[in-house]
Amino acid sequence: MTADQTFDVIVIGAGSTGENVADAVVKGGLSAALVESELVGGECSYWACMPSKALLRGTEVLDEARAVKGAAAAVTGDQDVAATLERRNSFTSGWDDSGQAQWVDGAGIALVRGAGRLAGERTVVVTAADGSTTTLTARHAVAVCTGSAAAVPPLEGIDEVEVWTAREATSAQQVPGRLVILGGGVVGVEMATAWSALGSQVTLLQRGGRLLAGQEPEAGDAVAESLRGRGVDVQLNTSVSAVRKDGDDVVVVTSAGEVRGDEFLVAAGRRARTEDIGLDTVGLTAGEYLDVDDTLRVRGVDWLYGVGDVNGRRLLTHMGKYQARQAGASIVARATGEQVSMADWSPFVATADAAATPQVTFSVPQVASVGITAAQAEEQGLAHTVVRYELGNVAGSALFADGYAGKAVAVVDTERQVLVGVTFVGPGVSEMLQAATIAVVGEVPISRLWHAVPAYPTMNEIWLRLLETLKG
Amino acid sequence: MTADQTFDVIVIGAGSTGENVADAVVKGGLSAALVESELVGGECSYWACMPSKALLRGTEVLDEARAVKGAAAAVTGDQDVAATLERRNSFTSGWDDSGQAQWVDGAGIALVRGAGRLAGERTVVVTAADGSTTTLTARHAVAVCTGSAAAVPPLEGIDEVEVWTAREATSAQQVPGRLVILGGGVVGVEMATAWSALGSQVTLLQRGGRLLAGQEPEAGDAVAESLRGRGVDVQLNTSVSAVRKDGDDVVVVTSAGEVRGDEFLVAAGRRARTEDIGLDTVGLTAGEYLDVDDTLRVRGVDWLYGVGDVNGRRLLTHMGKYQARQAGASIVARATGEQVSMADWSPFVATADAAATPQVTFSVPQVASVGITAAQAEEQGLAHTVVRYELGNVAGSALFADGYAGKAVAVVDTERQVLVGVTFVGPGVSEMLQAATIAVVGEVPISRLWHAVPAYPTMNEIWLRLLETLKG
Repeated sequence: MTADQTFDVIVIGAGSTGENVADAVVKGGLSAALVESELVGGECSYWACMPSKALLRGTEVLDEARAVKGAAAAVTGDQDVAATLERRNSFTSGWDDSGQAQWVDGAGIALVRGAGRLAGERTVVVTAADGSTTTLTARHAVAVCTGSAAAVPPLEGIDEVEVWTAREATSAQQVPGRLVILGGGVVGVEMATAWSALGSQVTLLQRGGRLLAGQEPEAGDAVAESLRGRGVDVQLNTSVSAVRKDGDDVVVVTSAGEVRGDEFLVAAGRRARTEDIGLDTVGLTAGEYLDVDDTLRVRGVDWLYGVGDVNGRRLLTHMGKYQARQAGASIVARATGEQVSMADWSPFVATADAAATPQVTFSVPQVASVGITAAQAEEQGLAHTVVRYELGNVAGSALFADGYAGKAVAVVDTERQVLVGVTFVGPGVSEMLQAATIAVVGEVPISRLWHAVPAYPTMNEIWLRLLETLKG
Repeated sequence: MTADQTFDVIVIGAGSTGENVADAVVKGGLSAALVESELVGGECSYWACMPSKALLRGTEVLDEARAVKGAAAAVTGDQDVAATLERRNSFTSGWDDSGQAQWVDGAGIALVRGAGRLAGERTVVVTAADGSTTTLTARHAVAVCTGSAAAVPPLEGIDEVEVWTAREATSAQQVPGRLVILGGGVVGVEMATAWSALGSQVTLLQRGGRLLAGQEPEAGDAVAESLRGRGVDVQLNTSVSAVRKDGDDVVVVTSAGEVRGDEFLVAAGRRARTEDIGLDTVGLTAGEYLDVDDTLRVRGVDWLYGVGDVNGRRLLTHMGKYQARQAGASIVARATGEQVSMADWSPFVATADAAATPQVTFSVPQVASVGITAAQAEEQGLAHTVVRYELGNVAGSALFADGYAGKAVAVVDTERQVLVGVTFVGPGVSEMLQAATIAVVGEVPISRLWHAVPAYPTMNEIWLRLLETLKG
């Protein structure tokens, strides 16, 4: 047992969000303890962003090379699957967190290994792997950064089957022969892309009529068409009612019949990881997302923060890190008696959560979006115009790949005359997103955007085409 | 001989700039004649941007594929040189301008084939290939959009040698065995990259101590190192005094000795194409760049505009097109008696020329920059800070390519707290530039840029790293 300790701030959960909260408060002059029961670095480093993108990158770049006449001739072999998995393993450091633990130490943060649970006001009890406990007391704040986990729906027979979640899908050391995926969101789509390219026969089951629901319809339509072209069996409007084992097979019972696979990936949403962190000791309900204000402080509990996936605002690594910076600034300011401005875009609030959350799906084609969609603008009753343009009609796209196909959709607030949403669908669009994010966040007037000349001939000439189309 | 005609606006030169001026004034309700003695579409379409990028793309994407473990195994062959040249030929439509002429017609612009020369106020005489002449009169304005040509320095023996300029270098149908290039600017660097990859033995001679002078030093240094690694003989601080023929060889006499080649590319700057357009008939000097105000109107001649390369402001296709939009708006406004605001960033002025000109060099690595460099900020006496960051240290870059090497440099105006210059050097950075352009043009405060969250894990996370470095 370690001696009980007092810190200015206690952070539960050492994923990228927790690391950033702790780092921010330490840089602000406070002391911080960071509590982690699994790997320091969390989901993104080991079972999400990093391994999934590492799995996908080889496929992406070979597709790009095959799409350029002259270069295509050089791509005569196949992607080396073992080397691709090995590259993925190196990006996850072989699921060893010593590098990250070293970073935590170097940042002046006290790492406490074990499961952290709230035990009343500003108190966290950490239970180590050996069962010993340490009680940590926070002078100023406790930040819960325990993230989210895959939500596994209560399908008939689900307990008898060893399902994959995003964790197993991103860390598998063998290519499954037949992979059945439940859910056509980001995880389902990315894993269908990755594993089909590496040799799996993939079936993708989506309850709704479109993949990537919530994005502009162009996104899901293009990805479904592409996946089918790559041999993935995409079944839309298909719900799953039960699963069972049959020898080595998993049999998935759907509204359209049965599908057999070697592995069954459930990618049907997330749930807050708040079941077992002592929320009841502070008057909150276990298992629910934490309800926070724009400084990421839990409503009604002035010393408690919920940062990252755990608050359910935006389940994305980069938004968790963003919230961490804002929450960190708020915690430091409140600890030192400084004013915390709740005004939009102040250094203390996560205004971008609602106004300008960027997201990239690393599918083929890629989908990159920020802000609101046309449908959301409609729902919100916003005075707006939607501008659409074929990305392939831009010279830079044609140079990028023969037969380039892609779409751009921009949503313009016609009263404020600013962009409020942009979506790009197409090969290689991921790095084009930041321009849209800056335009939306910066509220740069349309009249000024005309002066932001895209370099010719890049795909970014889409900016000119969108403005011209808007002008009519 | 065609009947003499009167138009609202006469545009001399149907490159992309001239096309855009004509298009803008026609869309504004005026009539326009577009005069062209060569190919409609101009330099960019046939002998610059399009063919050079088409030559380079295959090399770029194969480099990218070879840099991803697992994907590299698939790249077992060589780039198909004939297919690459053929792809380049298709991007220049085989140097046939009928498609562009059709566009001009469809846009309601009168295309007049022949050499246009000013003949006094608002008058242009067009001499057709058969020697016949037509006199065109402009009710409102004449826009000179004749562009620029390669400046060939008066080296001893230069007239006895058939030199290549950018035109021959981008349109060659054979890979030269040995290519000697004079000039380490954009053209020299891009052609050294393209032809060395396609099999030429290239020598690149640069008078100064660094390639891509005028860019941040990181750019030229990285490109020189890369070119050398690719087998190009990069000779810095080397001036050329003479050239001569020796059998089939071109012998280039430099300050460091003699270099032999099969072709000699002169890429040592540009000159205005104003020698033979009748400038003397309106009191101007032939051969000089046109001196224009921010609406691109020639100072002292209120009906005459000089748009694009011909004014020497920014010799870039996209900036010519930008100027064309601003000049077009000014011409229409003045023709209809509307107010023309000379205020910065108005729809009539080319403010971005000085404040935010983006440029991409499609070398390996690419160089993408906008605004001013650190050296220029210093020269201007601007209160500023320079932030530098290794682009390879961003997770998205490591995923993009194993061993990714790149740089980011940001120049911040410390009084206004806005970005005034950004440079990215590295593979695949060309599409990252528009974000910087929007930030500079939009004068988005640094405090607001913190809310423009880069999607993880893209290379654009460099934005976060630059802000963190700036904060210190």
